[in-house]
Amino acid sequence: MIRPLLILRLLAMPCLWMSVVQFTFGELSFMWFKDEVQHAFITPAAITFTLSLAFLFGFKKYPLPSVNIREAMLFASLTWLIVGILGAVPIITITQVSFTDGVFESISALTTTGATMLSGLDDMPPTFLMYRQFLQWMGGLGVVIFVVAILPMLNIGGMRLLKAETPGPIKDDKLSPRISNTTHYLWMVYLVITGLCAVSYYFAGMSAFDAIGHSFTTVSTGGFSTHDASMGYFKSPLILWICNLFMVLGAVNFALHYRVYIARSMILYWKDEEARTFLKIIAFVTLILALLLFQIDTEKGLWITITQTLFHVISFITSTGYAATDFGAWPAVTSIILIFVGYIGGCAGSTAGGNKVIRNIISFKSIGLEIKRLVRPNGVFSIKFQGRTISDDVRHSVMGFMCLAAMVTVLFTVLLMMTGMSFMASLSATAACLNVLGPGFAELGNNFSPLSDTGTWLMSFAMVLGRLEYFTVLVLFFPVFWRH
Amino acid sequence: MIRPLLILRLLAMPCLWMSVVQFTFGELSFMWFKDEVQHAFITPAAITFTLSLAFLFGFKKYPLPSVNIREAMLFASLTWLIVGILGAVPIITITQVSFTDGVFESISALTTTGATMLSGLDDMPPTFLMYRQFLQWMGGLGVVIFVVAILPMLNIGGMRLLKAETPGPIKDDKLSPRISNTTHYLWMVYLVITGLCAVSYYFAGMSAFDAIGHSFTTVSTGGFSTHDASMGYFKSPLILWICNLFMVLGAVNFALHYRVYIARSMILYWKDEEARTFLKIIAFVTLILALLLFQIDTEKGLWITITQTLFHVISFITSTGYAATDFGAWPAVTSIILIFVGYIGGCAGSTAGGNKVIRNIISFKSIGLEIKRLVRPNGVFSIKFQGRTISDDVRHSVMGFMCLAAMVTVLFTVLLMMTGMSFMASLSATAACLNVLGPGFAELGNNFSPLSDTGTWLMSFAMVLGRLEYFTVLVLFFPVFWRH
Ligand SMILES: [K+]
Ligand SMILES: [K+]
Repeated sequence: MIRPLLILRLLAMPCLWMSVVQFTFGELSFMWFKDEVQHAFITPAAITFTLSLAFLFGFKKYPLPSVNIREAMLFASLTWLIVGILGAVPIITITQVSFTDGVFESISALTTTGATMLSGLDDMPPTFLMYRQFLQWMGGLGVVIFVVAILPMLNIGGMRLLKAETPGPIKDDKLSPRISNTTHYLWMVYLVITGLCAVSYYFAGMSAFDAIGHSFTTVSTGGFSTHDASMGYFKSPLILWICNLFMVLGAVNFALHYRVYIARSMILYWKDEEARTFLKIIAFVTLILALLLFQIDTEKGLWITITQTLFHVISFITSTGYAATDFGAWPAVTSIILIFVGYIGGCAGSTAGGNKVIRNIISFKSIGLEIKRLVRPNGVFSIKFQGRTISDDVRHSVMGFMCLAAMVTVLFTVLLMMTGMSFMASLSATAACLNVLGPGFAELGNNFSPLSDTGTWLMSFAMVLGRLEYFTVLVLFFPVFWRH
Repeated sequence: MIRPLLILRLLAMPCLWMSVVQFTFGELSFMWFKDEVQHAFITPAAITFTLSLAFLFGFKKYPLPSVNIREAMLFASLTWLIVGILGAVPIITITQVSFTDGVFESISALTTTGATMLSGLDDMPPTFLMYRQFLQWMGGLGVVIFVVAILPMLNIGGMRLLKAETPGPIKDDKLSPRISNTTHYLWMVYLVITGLCAVSYYFAGMSAFDAIGHSFTTVSTGGFSTHDASMGYFKSPLILWICNLFMVLGAVNFALHYRVYIARSMILYWKDEEARTFLKIIAFVTLILALLLFQIDTEKGLWITITQTLFHVISFITSTGYAATDFGAWPAVTSIILIFVGYIGGCAGSTAGGNKVIRNIISFKSIGLEIKRLVRPNGVFSIKFQGRTISDDVRHSVMGFMCLAAMVTVLFTVLLMMTGMSFMASLSATAACLNVLGPGFAELGNNFSPLSDTGTWLMSFAMVLGRLEYFTVLVLFFPVFWRH
């Protein structure tokens, strides 16, 4: 059963939240930055606020806690669409981009993708710049809640696995008690890490404005900057190393952060199979890439090469998408490696995108199992993750997810090429959007404005698809979802 | 237990066969074509013949029928390597290419890939041209036997499915009785279809020489031609349509051909889920591609566009790799579509490469099942193929195979780029070799000679990997294979 009015009522909550955010930024513009863009925020905020309250209180006979799984899935997809459109209003008003481009920019922020239509950021009103970065921070939190609280119940791409990972009461299958319970501690962890990040940036030499703004987009692995040169603007290896740390923290399961906090024991990070593998992959890919780059350009010296390489590997694998140098000028093979590293992704239950480390682990173990079974056809084997046996169901979900990611990549690349983009631009943009990573290559190396309107909508769709782990969105296109 | 001397004795059989083939071509050169290349064939044939007989009769205490599954897997990989090297000797002698390039050309022939190092084919000795085409025909037959008789026993990539498909006694799990039984009828079907193909080509206007040679490489979906312009040389739509028919026949399960022959009923092709889906995919992709091409160039007219498009779609999906026009000059999006169409592949149990239609069907159904389960978490669902329920084991194998194909593609593309090739050349060459398809793009658009030696060996390895369905070869690199 899907109750449209209940869904409208549910949607009123994120909309209400968006209106509060926009109202706050209107106030900030008026009282603090004095950059005269307050009307771009306050007018839409007032309208959204009124409508949201009307929906919330007008349909009281649909109690929010009665939401079922199908309604939750529809709600998740619609939230990103509706909030994307609402978030776009100030963007369109201030930068004068088209509706299509504005919605793209807004969805790119909220999904923490960080692909942009804009250039000339350095000269834009500070309120606008911080608003754009704050949207990523909000989107990051939203995703963490979605992934930790809702996905395990749906078992999308095998994420029922995470159920035993999350603290708090987990036997309950109803959505709302779990969500409010989970939301509580996630909020806290997210806020604390962001605060630490901002303070570190500030003491490393950023202005307070940049420190706060970039802490929003580092911990959310969003990647929006206030400068066209991104992190390269600061010309500070220290800032890059701080950024490395907090991008990695943003890409680790937030439930694990909470466990570390409760137990006061950093060793738990290393005891966690996913986090440990994540760090190993980063080290391995950095090694390969640093060797490749050092071989081509020995002038910079080993230390600078390693700093640069590590930063970009972390930026891509955590799906942040910050740049510290013009990596578009690196040899083609490094671009391709970085693009595909984006598919690995961060840990589940984090703000990072990509296929997630946990799925990579299970896929590799699953393929390894097939190889063992070839050699010993009568042997009885099973896969373990973090000491627990993985069920057939989880294997099916994970492998289905991995295949789907590959198929959707090919499909979207071809569709984007049909809009006139080159192969490299199409593949890199598709990968950047599906993995909520951000940077494109070739024609889209500077920003995404060369995309046609069709191409832009396609990529907006790809961002939501990737952010909600494919299945949540795709299921809406199947008749089985709508049948009673 | 792996007995090296038994494997040597087993290897003596294909080597003996190769020596007979080379001896025959030596005779052909001397008695018929009089192109004075007989020594390039007869000398290696004599050496191989002597050595093979020595091994075959020298180690009689290792009876061939005692071969076990692990030995069979090692034998399969080594066969392609050893016979590849033996087959290269006349190629190196006649064309003066390097050892590396000669082995590549020979493996390309035997795996029915059809990627070539050579140009100026039209001026080469006819004996050599026909030898090269005959190697594909032999390779095609070898693969059909391997895939129909051996793979189902190993359940590589879910191929245990095919067991119920093959006629004859199938309860027996020992290799040899099954192989000899299966080989018998496969030989016959293969020979009859090739004969029909040659006769059709001849009456459509090819010379007897070209008709026979091209029937070898059409039915084996190999794609080697005697002309640089490939099928475009003949400038005959009739020949293209004949070629379409026989490429498709070569890409359909040979066990199904046999059933059709026994039952005298063509309708069985349509009743077979894999063959039916195969034809539907061809129609669908042709429609898309024809619309794309017609939109760009309306001058040629609809009929010629459809003829050209259908031919190239069939050529790529069946992994034949013939060309009828300079498709490198088509828009980039069509190249990309054709490259990825190669991954779909033909039917299992045929000479075609790629992931095979059956695995595509099961993957899609598997993903569809995950979607159903999201909507009805407590429902009990299963996948059916050809009316039979697919077990979890088969699903695991198939999905593992699909993921592996994607991962290996990325890995080999990156490795090839490290040898200095462009992204497009690397990706297209990797796809062409893994899917035993043939044609490359960009720098490798004319032939594969721009590859470095490292790159050439990498691609030779890729062809064997793809031809033996990944797992058969990869398993050799895992300690578990060698442990007692
Ligand atoms: K990002
Ligand atoms: K081929």
